[in-house]
Amino acid sequence: MAKELKNLTKRSENYSQWYNELVTKADLAEQSAVRGCMVIKPYGYAIWEKMQQTLDAMFKKTGVKNAYFPLLIPKSFLCREAEHVEGFAKECAVVTHYRLKNDPDGNGVIVDPEARLEEELIVRPTSETIIWGTYKNWIHSYRDLPIVCNQWANVMRWEMRTRMFLRTAEFLWQEGHTAHATAEEAEERTVQMINIYADFARKYMAMPVIVGVKSANERFAGALNTYTIEAMMQDGKALQSGTSHFLGQNFAKAFDVTFVNKDNQPEYVWASSWGVSTRLMGALIMTHSDDNGLVLPPHLAPIQVVIVPIYKNDEQLSAISERVKPIIAKLEEMGISVKYDDADNRRPGFKFADYEVKGVPVRLAIGARDLENGTVELMRRDTLEKETLPLEGIEAHIAGLLEKIQENIYNKALAYREKMTYTADTYEEFKEKIENGGFILAHWDGTPETEEKIKNETKATIRCIPLDGDDTPGVCMVTGKPSARRVIFARAY
Amino acid sequence: MAKELKNLTKRSENYSQWYNELVTKADLAEQSAVRGCMVIKPYGYAIWEKMQQTLDAMFKKTGVKNAYFPLLIPKSFLCREAEHVEGFAKECAVVTHYRLKNDPDGNGVIVDPEARLEEELIVRPTSETIIWGTYKNWIHSYRDLPIVCNQWANVMRWEMRTRMFLRTAEFLWQEGHTAHATAEEAEERTVQMINIYADFARKYMAMPVIVGVKSANERFAGALNTYTIEAMMQDGKALQSGTSHFLGQNFAKAFDVTFVNKDNQPEYVWASSWGVSTRLMGALIMTHSDDNGLVLPPHLAPIQVVIVPIYKNDEQLSAISERVKPIIAKLEEMGISVKYDDADNRRPGFKFADYEVKGVPVRLAIGARDLENGTVELMRRDTLEKETLPLEGIEAHIAGLLEKIQENIYNKALAYREKMTYTADTYEEFKEKIENGGFILAHWDGTPETEEKIKNETKATIRCIPLDGDDTPGVCMVTGKPSARRVIFARAY
Repeated sequence: MAKELKNLTKRSENYSQWYNELVTKADLAEQSAVRGCMVIKPYGYAIWEKMQQTLDAMFKKTGVKNAYFPLLIPKSFLCREAEHVEGFAKECAVVTHYRLKNDPDGNGVIVDPEARLEEELIVRPTSETIIWGTYKNWIHSYRDLPIVCNQWANVMRWEMRTRMFLRTAEFLWQEGHTAHATAEEAEERTVQMINIYADFARKYMAMPVIVGVKSANERFAGALNTYTIEAMMQDGKALQSGTSHFLGQNFAKAFDVTFVNKDNQPEYVWASSWGVSTRLMGALIMTHSDDNGLVLPPHLAPIQVVIVPIYKNDEQLSAISERVKPIIAKLEEMGISVKYDDADNRRPGFKFADYEVKGVPVRLAIGARDLENGTVELMRRDTLEKETLPLEGIEAHIAGLLEKIQENIYNKALAYREKMTYTADTYEEFKEKIENGGFILAHWDGTPETEEKIKNETKATIRCIPLDGDDTPGVCMVTGKPSARRVIFARAY
Repeated sequence: MAKELKNLTKRSENYSQWYNELVTKADLAEQSAVRGCMVIKPYGYAIWEKMQQTLDAMFKKTGVKNAYFPLLIPKSFLCREAEHVEGFAKECAVVTHYRLKNDPDGNGVIVDPEARLEEELIVRPTSETIIWGTYKNWIHSYRDLPIVCNQWANVMRWEMRTRMFLRTAEFLWQEGHTAHATAEEAEERTVQMINIYADFARKYMAMPVIVGVKSANERFAGALNTYTIEAMMQDGKALQSGTSHFLGQNFAKAFDVTFVNKDNQPEYVWASSWGVSTRLMGALIMTHSDDNGLVLPPHLAPIQVVIVPIYKNDEQLSAISERVKPIIAKLEEMGISVKYDDADNRRPGFKFADYEVKGVPVRLAIGARDLENGTVELMRRDTLEKETLPLEGIEAHIAGLLEKIQENIYNKALAYREKMTYTADTYEEFKEKIENGGFILAHWDGTPETEEKIKNETKATIRCIPLDGDDTPGVCMVTGKPSARRVIFARAY
């Protein structure tokens, strides 16, 4: 059993299979009976909950208030904003009936044809339309602005090819929807939120991200401008990890939402929307994990420290437990989450393998000999290094170590990204380099046509036009036309 | 505007209209564009969030782990347990298609007839079926048991008559689903959870509840036994506020979930499920609120104390703000949530009315004269009593007062329930008394037929067979047959 747990496909052999096996073996999620929908298992959900709580607190500090809007959207609402419906109509779950009935032919239960809805309802793929339909009632005067609402919700997009966490038909997310009196204020909020996402990614997920703007091709359906955070996975592919959209007055116009300004004139309201989803779980897994399983950043690990007693009899166990009890209490007092695993139906070797595959940052093992010597064996998950340490003062050591691990895995991921970031000055060079994955900084003429051509020929897209970094102008590697600055190309999830 | 806020229909005039107006005026929720679905507004959601966080912590203390299961359930799953499908098939939203397309006739967007699902999917009305379909993969041996999972989720029941919070097509809830090796353990968990609900209702919602068992007629579809907490609203009607079900082996049998016991024999797994929903918001509103608006128990109020400065000029305002700042800091340090409302676009009278209708437990008003005298005017929302108090030491006074208010509204609700609880020994007496609302303790012969007859003739149902209280046997008020003990009848929401 311990062997089976560790028997993970290597990343270098088959990255995609490694990922799928890891999600299962670390007990994070599994496929459900419904096509493309996953079950998030307790251990996976505990990580998502930590993400959620952390983000929620960060949002609230900036004045965000949570609310809840309906799951189902009338078809006519979805159609109000032309680009928006174009972007989402092809992949949505449609509710057409509201009742089942017994099959008159005796074959169980069938959809009752008499319970057909007058207007079909769409399971929300995102909630701009239903929310702007609601905001119309909330907004009359400049005094009602700004509105800065967020909801934690499930959404559904009927994707054809799905992968757990990365692309699922149903996923969990938060979506913020704000309304403002001026374009400037709406854009400021758009940028503020992408920076919160970047902060969260870096400080909690230990994941370096690049903040930038999407090209027109990659923009959200209905937005004037989309900001993104882009991360690099260990196979050199990019993962879009969070987006924040400046929606201009598009949805206000589609739903006729105006306000009377200070000069008593009616104006359309300005908007932003922004979201991150359970996709972040995929990003987290693929940024740090190794061939032994999950590696979790201490700031998001549901269990930060596991203590495994090694004993031959009940007497030894109770001596160990006695010695360990005050250590656990002290650690918990310091805000560190500890699991003491004294379960007697699994052997230490199994436990070691299990916590390793689950990515618990620090493992302590303590046996009868340790007790005599006043020592403990500590293993850190990120480097797999073991050392024997005095029990005395172990709590402070662990607290420091958790921060060290958090920093170390961030630096490791950053070093990998830097190693895998190239420049290309000609299209030939670009085509050659893109085969190895990674980010390629190249000049582009700013047209959707050129981007489309590059995508068709190389499968690489513009991940973003970075907000920071080298902004020297140049010429497009494909057309030779002027380029304002290098942008980031990559193959992406 | 202030007048409009307070201009609430009186409970004695039209209780139902009072409720609807209050939900709107206190900014808790509103109807959405989708039939029977509500929008939970930020202030309402903040109360729900406090409920959620409190309950979640109470659950976790008993070993509950959160997880997430799919929104959509294959029709065939719903049909596996006969009573269950009977109970839910008539009120469910059915997804039949997964794509829209442009109408070839140019009328916007239509459902793509080619994107019909092979098997229809049901928006979950509750998740026993999809979860037991999943547990089949998780459970093999007694070592895998117990499983104690909960999910916070949205569910949908296509009710014909809806009312905000009390009965909506979509609602938010938690549903716990547990799996055990023995019937005793499953029943223990069932009872443990109903007791947690009762505890939560009493200590946080300040709502007295009676814990009892449902009669067969009122049982959950698929359960062997349903425990309930029943509360009395201010119109004398009962509100079922939370339920916990002992499911026996019904779902294990329907989904063929067995485990190998310690004697190496296969056995079906035993189950419980339990839930509370946004209906609790309706219960909270109707238990305490008065003709001036919402009354919130301090333990669940998003704003526990509001401070309104009364000033004629900026100088006065800044003097007041200066004096108030350390008081706010001290209160927050004590874990009390405070709002200092110095907004200059609304007058104090408007603010007073607004916080009154929103049920903020304690209001402080402070003007220039108070500053001179070192005093503050305090109003408590539950009694509407005002007093002028020294600013010095106000923090400790408030902390004590919040607990007093919490206790007072509980006692008030309890006194009301006791006043409105009667016994009836004959069916004549019963029919007369039930017209005035309230709980009626009466003897019943234990048969569904008698209960059905009483329901048809009086609209009263058995709310529960209480676990505590008078258990003297007697004779049924309708049939004269033996009765084990008095049960509680009431008209209910």
